[in-house]
Amino acid sequence: ANPEAGKAKVEAVCAACHGIAGISASPAFPNLAGQKEAYLQAALTAYKDGSRKNPIMGNLAAGLSDTDIADLAAYLSGLKRCE
Amino acid sequence: ANPEAGKAKVEAVCAACHGIAGISASPAFPNLAGQKEAYLQAALTAYKDGSRKNPIMGNLAAGLSDTDIADLAAYLSGLKRCE
Repeated sequence: ANPEAGKAKVEAVCAACHGIAGISASPAFPNLAGQKEAYLQAALTAYKDGSRKNPIMGNLAAGLSDTDIADLAAYLSGLKRCE
Repeated sequence: ANPEAGKAKVEAVCAACHGIAGISASPAFPNLAGQKEAYLQAALTAYKDGSRKNPIMGNLAAGLSDTDIADLAAYLSGLKRCE
């Protein structure tokens, strides 16, 4: 996977809710920094195929390719869980 | 909510997959330590009512009351995200 490509996507899209460093500002949105890579990939894939339902994530994930998902999971799982 | 009651439940059940400190040993199971309290509550409730499907979590959550869920979310969100 290509974490650099993941970084660009996070900063363009995901950071709005999940925070630029993957620690979200809102209690409703999960922290993603340092989350398990395989879990992130499974969650994004589930949002994409609709097996996990969320109005925001469903729409966003629909536009992601499997490569995008792998890149995002690689980047986010590499972020430090705390400062 | 009662984090102490949450702690007892985590150590009895959740720790098996999610780790005693909420950092899971397996890449398939998400870290829970320091995750957002409202998100944890929403996720557990979704597993309980079946709107989020997972064979393991569905069965485990079925046995949880809303109080249990609140206690678990309070305890887990309070755990440090890193050593």
